[in-house]
Amino acid sequence: MTDTPSLDRPAEALDALRAALAAAGPDLPPDLLVFGDAIPERNLQDWSRQPPVRPLALARPRSTQEVAAVLRACAQTGLAVVPQGGLTGLVRGAHPVAGGVALSMERLTGVEEVDAEGATMIVRAGTPLQQVQQAAEQAGLFFPLDLGSRGSCSIGGNVSTNAGGNRVIRYGTARDQVLGLEAVLPDGTVVNALNRLVKNNTGYDIKHLFIGAEGTLGAITRIALRLQPRPAALDAALCALPDYASLLGLLSALRARFGPGLTSFEAMWDEYLDTIVSTFDLRRPFAAAHRFYAIVEISRFGAGDESRLPDALGELMEQGLIEDALIAQTEREAAAFWQIREIVGDLRQKAGPLVSYDIGLPAGVTDRFVETSAARVRAQWPDAMHLAYGHLGDNNLHLIVRSPACGSDQPRDGFDRAIYDTVREFGGSISAEHGIGTTKRPYLGHSRSPEEIAVMRMVKRALDPEGRMNPGKVLEG
Amino acid sequence: MTDTPSLDRPAEALDALRAALAAAGPDLPPDLLVFGDAIPERNLQDWSRQPPVRPLALARPRSTQEVAAVLRACAQTGLAVVPQGGLTGLVRGAHPVAGGVALSMERLTGVEEVDAEGATMIVRAGTPLQQVQQAAEQAGLFFPLDLGSRGSCSIGGNVSTNAGGNRVIRYGTARDQVLGLEAVLPDGTVVNALNRLVKNNTGYDIKHLFIGAEGTLGAITRIALRLQPRPAALDAALCALPDYASLLGLLSALRARFGPGLTSFEAMWDEYLDTIVSTFDLRRPFAAAHRFYAIVEISRFGAGDESRLPDALGELMEQGLIEDALIAQTEREAAAFWQIREIVGDLRQKAGPLVSYDIGLPAGVTDRFVETSAARVRAQWPDAMHLAYGHLGDNNLHLIVRSPACGSDQPRDGFDRAIYDTVREFGGSISAEHGIGTTKRPYLGHSRSPEEIAVMRMVKRALDPEGRMNPGKVLEG
Repeated sequence: MTDTPSLDRPAEALDALRAALAAAGPDLPPDLLVFGDAIPERNLQDWSRQPPVRPLALARPRSTQEVAAVLRACAQTGLAVVPQGGLTGLVRGAHPVAGGVALSMERLTGVEEVDAEGATMIVRAGTPLQQVQQAAEQAGLFFPLDLGSRGSCSIGGNVSTNAGGNRVIRYGTARDQVLGLEAVLPDGTVVNALNRLVKNNTGYDIKHLFIGAEGTLGAITRIALRLQPRPAALDAALCALPDYASLLGLLSALRARFGPGLTSFEAMWDEYLDTIVSTFDLRRPFAAAHRFYAIVEISRFGAGDESRLPDALGELMEQGLIEDALIAQTEREAAAFWQIREIVGDLRQKAGPLVSYDIGLPAGVTDRFVETSAARVRAQWPDAMHLAYGHLGDNNLHLIVRSPACGSDQPRDGFDRAIYDTVREFGGSISAEHGIGTTKRPYLGHSRSPEEIAVMRMVKRALDPEGRMNPGKVLEG
Repeated sequence: MTDTPSLDRPAEALDALRAALAAAGPDLPPDLLVFGDAIPERNLQDWSRQPPVRPLALARPRSTQEVAAVLRACAQTGLAVVPQGGLTGLVRGAHPVAGGVALSMERLTGVEEVDAEGATMIVRAGTPLQQVQQAAEQAGLFFPLDLGSRGSCSIGGNVSTNAGGNRVIRYGTARDQVLGLEAVLPDGTVVNALNRLVKNNTGYDIKHLFIGAEGTLGAITRIALRLQPRPAALDAALCALPDYASLLGLLSALRARFGPGLTSFEAMWDEYLDTIVSTFDLRRPFAAAHRFYAIVEISRFGAGDESRLPDALGELMEQGLIEDALIAQTEREAAAFWQIREIVGDLRQKAGPLVSYDIGLPAGVTDRFVETSAARVRAQWPDAMHLAYGHLGDNNLHLIVRSPACGSDQPRDGFDRAIYDTVREFGGSISAEHGIGTTKRPYLGHSRSPEEIAVMRMVKRALDPEGRMNPGKVLEG
């Protein structure tokens, strides 16, 4: 936790903030700031299940100018600022800091512009992801970023944390959807870098500073997004495989056969599927038990692009790579495959407390990693559940770990050490898509070299010399 | 031109550099540095046709450690350093500075590692692009970045300048091919950020600092590249169109029908095609004259992916969008289409001095831009040739301007003003893919806001506080 001087004298700090804002703009709306008990509970925490923190004040600007006014006032009064999007983060990145100001983008919403011809869109940071997807669809186009929290998360938060999701294998992460952005620096300077061009090599591409920085360098206010052609059809299949080599073989074979048409490849270890099916009382997709499962999705475009998936899977089954496969004949059948993967979000409610991990690993070593990690966890907690699944095609493994014997007091720190130490040994990343926030900060050095962290600090000092912008997140304060 | 203190006393500066290097590493090879007349002519300039500059010394390291030793020695002696790749740049970005050290990567070559399963590759910065492409092909994969200078340019230069080329519409620029990199900071610190993971959200993604920075923040030494599935077949066609709306319509229609299968869309204005055909005595592709032409390329993957291009173009012709079209039946016919586009590199030799431009523009306004620009150029130089062509799908327009009456003394500065002022009015970019270097530096403010440039300076100061790294390039010294 990072404290600010305002902690000692909150009333004085508040008065100073109010005065600075009043001086900044007489036209600012009276409800721009709320204080104390008037701050809604939802703004005190993200989805990380960490203890809530009540900030000094909550700002809810409706425009870039209001964001700039708040940041200028905070600069004048030396207050820390924590930007907030949809608050669906899992690493405490948007948790307020005590004595600081939470800067929520929840009112800075709306799609400002859709250019169907140029396949671009300008959106305000607080716009929910789902609204962005819908606006693209209405223009006959496609915004491919997709997460389970699409109705709650904001596009600004997606960009600020470089969110991933289900279609990274083909379309990349949030970063890859961004052509330009507007951000406000800690001193209140508005930086308009709302580029709409695919190619623009005019000096440093500063949008990349703010993307994935988790609000530690400035507050993103508007974003220019790139849109994609909308697939005419999606083919989905659920494949059963005998071993990990076959799983990698299937991924390679589908890449070679479909190229960019392969838009999802979700792997599930047997323990994952067995647990999900029994916990949620789902129908087992295959009569027999298999070692691995994969949901694959192929996108087709335009007229005459017939499905080639049945033939491809037929051949791969003849080759012995696949043991069994189901091809969805309807959208409902496809949704049933995806349910096996997406219902995991409800596992906590059904099974009780658990700890989940978001890890990046080279695909070639992911199976050995899972075995090693499970063995190490079970050496200390022999009853532990250790469920593995993830977007294998983009190096992303999710793990769910839970020791039933530990009940409501899951040994999170112990799990963390066992798992992150194994990640380091395997040359992996401690965060594939969730970010660092504060919960993963102690392990940053497991995945980044001291020299990399030193460069991060140079950038942080350059853009936020007073360290007031989302202090303590990503880097120690 | 940026001078360094060593200009006053070159002999002393050289002695100090030699002493610093000797102290740094007794094992450094004696040919690491060459001086004065021993410096080859090729290292004195890039392809921008600007006057050559002889540096104090040329360093040709064979390893990252040698790069670091050179940079440390330069830091100790206060010398400026200019990284050089294949020297094929067009904006003077790799021109030495007088009194400084040119740091050529020409001996830091080779593919260190190819991971076919993970579809990644580690290469040294000086490796020619063509060698990278070949290594990917040998692994059954595909490295999509492609430029006319593929045999001469280096992958380090491609990344450092964020090069574009013919397939950006589908695969993005050089930036999008990079998973990680290793760079040496101006003080000699080696920063290993050789990430190989598609998803890795562990703090700031510092590779983006060095990509496109044209060597002003550090020297890139090694790069982790992402490889792609290799297309099974490429379909190429040359289309003739009646007007600009039809050209945009064709682009939209092909995007909708082929999605990511559309891997090239090269537009050519009639004046371009007419001039090329007559200058190089090529066969006219169509008997009739048309207003616009486009080379389109569709990639197909795997077995059973039959060509849908003839049907698609047939329908678009029935709709009146296309006036005529030729579909290549052989690779040789496809090469003939591309020759019309690629032979422009030889136009200078045939037609005499000319000035070429690399501009980014929203596709919707590109035609109006070309008309406006041509009118303004011809208002001053009525005889001017004004040829337009480019990668329309990624907002990239190339222009060639030449006034025959001006002979060998083309009014470059006058052309620049007329064209870049028009770019600013149309909300375009003064450099889509070539970068800024020094030749476009006076116009940086035409495409970037003062706040953006201020952020660039913050980053520059943070990583290169003494301003010794490629001084005067991109930003004024």
